[in-house]
Amino acid sequence: MIKNTFFKKKKIYLNDICNLLNLKKYSSKNYLLNDIKDLNSANKDDLSFFYSLKYKNLAVNTKCKTIITLKKFQKYFPKDINLLFVDNVLLSIAKITLLFYPDSLNEGFDPSCSKPNLTKYKNIKFGKNVLIGNNVKIGKYSCLGNNTIIERNVIVGDNCIIGSNVIIKNTIIGNEVVIQDGAVIGKKGFGFFPDKIKNIRYPHVGMVIIGNNVEIGCNNTIDRGSLSNTVIGDNTFLDNQVHIAHNVKIGKNCIITAQVGFAGSAKLGNQVSIGGQAGISGHISIGNNVQIGGGSGVIKNVPDNTKVMGYPAKDIRSFLKQNK
Amino acid sequence: MIKNTFFKKKKIYLNDICNLLNLKKYSSKNYLLNDIKDLNSANKDDLSFFYSLKYKNLAVNTKCKTIITLKKFQKYFPKDINLLFVDNVLLSIAKITLLFYPDSLNEGFDPSCSKPNLTKYKNIKFGKNVLIGNNVKIGKYSCLGNNTIIERNVIVGDNCIIGSNVIIKNTIIGNEVVIQDGAVIGKKGFGFFPDKIKNIRYPHVGMVIIGNNVEIGCNNTIDRGSLSNTVIGDNTFLDNQVHIAHNVKIGKNCIITAQVGFAGSAKLGNQVSIGGQAGISGHISIGNNVQIGGGSGVIKNVPDNTKVMGYPAKDIRSFLKQNK
Amino acid sequence: MIKNTFFKKKKIYLNDICNLLNLKKYSSKNYLLNDIKDLNSANKDDLSFFYSLKYKNLAVNTKCKTIITLKKFQKYFPKDINLLFVDNVLLSIAKITLLFYPDSLNEGFDPSCSKPNLTKYKNIKFGKNVLIGNNVKIGKYSCLGNNTIIERNVIVGDNCIIGSNVIIKNTIIGNEVVIQDGAVIGKKGFGFFPDKIKNIRYPHVGMVIIGNNVEIGCNNTIDRGSLSNTVIGDNTFLDNQVHIAHNVKIGKNCIITAQVGFAGSAKLGNQVSIGGQAGISGHISIGNNVQIGGGSGVIKNVPDNTKVMGYPAKDIRSFLKQNK
Repeated sequence: MIKNTFFKKKKIYLNDICNLLNLKKYSSKNYLLNDIKDLNSANKDDLSFFYSLKYKNLAVNTKCKTIITLKKFQKYFPKDINLLFVDNVLLSIAKITLLFYPDSLNEGFDPSCSKPNLTKYKNIKFGKNVLIGNNVKIGKYSCLGNNTIIERNVIVGDNCIIGSNVIIKNTIIGNEVVIQDGAVIGKKGFGFFPDKIKNIRYPHVGMVIIGNNVEIGCNNTIDRGSLSNTVIGDNTFLDNQVHIAHNVKIGKNCIITAQVGFAGSAKLGNQVSIGGQAGISGHISIGNNVQIGGGSGVIKNVPDNTKVMGYPAKDIRSFLKQNK
Repeated sequence: MIKNTFFKKKKIYLNDICNLLNLKKYSSKNYLLNDIKDLNSANKDDLSFFYSLKYKNLAVNTKCKTIITLKKFQKYFPKDINLLFVDNVLLSIAKITLLFYPDSLNEGFDPSCSKPNLTKYKNIKFGKNVLIGNNVKIGKYSCLGNNTIIERNVIVGDNCIIGSNVIIKNTIIGNEVVIQDGAVIGKKGFGFFPDKIKNIRYPHVGMVIIGNNVEIGCNNTIDRGSLSNTVIGDNTFLDNQVHIAHNVKIGKNCIITAQVGFAGSAKLGNQVSIGGQAGISGHISIGNNVQIGGGSGVIKNVPDNTKVMGYPAKDIRSFLKQNK
Repeated sequence: MIKNTFFKKKKIYLNDICNLLNLKKYSSKNYLLNDIKDLNSANKDDLSFFYSLKYKNLAVNTKCKTIITLKKFQKYFPKDINLLFVDNVLLSIAKITLLFYPDSLNEGFDPSCSKPNLTKYKNIKFGKNVLIGNNVKIGKYSCLGNNTIIERNVIVGDNCIIGSNVIIKNTIIGNEVVIQDGAVIGKKGFGFFPDKIKNIRYPHVGMVIIGNNVEIGCNNTIDRGSLSNTVIGDNTFLDNQVHIAHNVKIGKNCIITAQVGFAGSAKLGNQVSIGGQAGISGHISIGNNVQIGGGSGVIKNVPDNTKVMGYPAKDIRSFLKQNK
């Protein structure tokens, strides 16, 4: 996961975590933790977490040695892992993320934005009133339309065409990408713990990673990841008014028609085509070469090479038979 | 209903109404009318209206003494109310609203918008190119992102975070509210009387009232009320691309996921959660502690403490059983 | 189709086409071709194409004398038409369009945009930071809100009210039209030929044609046509967050509620009303005086004077009966 380049991270030891979460009993050992990551990307020196049997395979194979989880999940892990048992895994992880990344809840606009420095940004066409933040790189021959805002922590590749009224932050964009007017890319996702007085927001330190040759339609909203990244693969095209929540991974060569919505952490293979207004539930996995009919609601995993339709989405032949 | 502070209202007598609607027979008495309001909020000196048995309870209990209605609804009202019978209640009310509020059909942008006066707006962080209209109040420590426009007749509370490319008008916002990039709040609703040559627009004099600790997602559209207000309760969070039509009332602590749409005058209780892309029909009422599955179409009232799903939405267990 | 006024067209002879597509055998005759058009609007001197039996009636009655098609469709055409057989009609047409209109794949912002020349645009109210491209006409007494961008090749009629943060290009707008904040009108449609390395974009040379007295809601996206125009008839009203794909034709006096989506080349009659979040499939035809329930998915033609609902949409009475 590409994030350390961008976000200020503090040096955190196991004891800091134990103090934060009142887990004194685990503090006999103490060591430096490199970062907080999801199980899929965590390395030996990172801290990770496990809260649902949906991700059981990841637990068995993880390289990570320090994991926050529930007592009842103890049996799924090898003995040499330092397991820290808590009552609420995600709430604990939110607190720890904030410890690593004290700025991760800041949602205000980027005050470093100003007119582009034309000495720094050569060979780039800028429209009127463009604003660029600190720590932005833009590749050669790219163009940015009128009123567009690129906040800090963004890399844009070569030969990209970015429209007008676009807002981009916390995002890495490949080459020859087209982003159309009014798209908003990289703001924090819709993640929080409900509380009757004041909901507790989940910190977001992930990015949006956009491959090469991607097209992103008008007024799309693509949220940054929380602890992993939101990813859009090479040569995938999105139509207008598509919504992509935090941590969604979309493969290569996909075709996503207008007004489709993805809930958080949904995963799509390659060569998937989705008709207009379909919805994809959170935390589900859709295979390669899948076709999803317009208006469908997909609420469970879909295997490779299938066509589904309806709500809940099912095999397209049985849908059409039932709905003659 | 909070509106008189903002909108220019003319002094209207009963005789003015009778002349406007050709109701000479009611003009024997004449008295000053305070305002035009819906039955729920009208007081003794106001003018109100009744056009559907859906609101029968309001008729029985109203404090209002002057009501526009159909002849056939006469029996639902106490004898001491001055009933004015017309052929088309809503069209008559549109004409009367225009009489009270001659500016209420003006839909153009606010020409009073200009760069914020930093002497007036202290302790507030402004992005680049922000525009502020006349008669705007912004609470301390709030921040407004780049290119954001606050038109006249807006109050923003303390510690609010308003993103970039946001447009707000005719709206009162509580404290610690987050409004994300590209949201459009407070424009007139989609209300008119169809006519084959040129539709007749319904005047809008209501506001949008947003409570404390609310979060409003990117590219949301939230329309002002027509004669009542559009309301979003404390600590309610809306995801991206949500649409809220005129006069909708949403309670406290609700969770509204991306691309959900509310038709006009729908009402939601507290602690309601709605999955992505669900739609809520107009003029229906949803209770407290209700869960609505993603993609559902809710077309009738939903009682407290229930879970519904499907289109039309029904009890979630029967939906899942029928759709195995 | 109104386009020649705006877009640079090259002089193309039949031999140029034959060279481009490796169709040497057709090059015995050679003559000047006026333009490339769909079968519905092509004249004697134009080049047109035929790729689906859905449009068989158009083939029989066409005035066009030079048509690209598949060998198997030969029998549907009169003998005096010069038929050019290819393997992939649409891909060939994409290449030919690019030959006629070399600029038709350029998707970047319009660099000619600048502050409006107030000597040229008299009697027009401009908000702050408005940008206007070359070759734009704006009728008298129209107003344009803050930050709005009118790119080149746009005509706006008299008495139009255009909101803030609006983007318009390749569009002709009638009189007394209202376009609300954040709408994006006239960008190219979502048309391309999938390719595993890099999708091949379909050139767009059509316009958006908007009639008189039309209302277009906030954050709508209305794409320009590819070879024909996208059309919205007089006195049709669109609510917020509506999506209209390329080549869609909407009749007069229609009412399109929020979050409705139209796929490419769908056709709507007059006096059609569509409830919120409904979706209309591509290349289907909906008659006059049709009512479509909110949330419906319409996947086949709908005859005049009917009411439909559901997904797939069917007669409303059978839908409600089945879903009690």
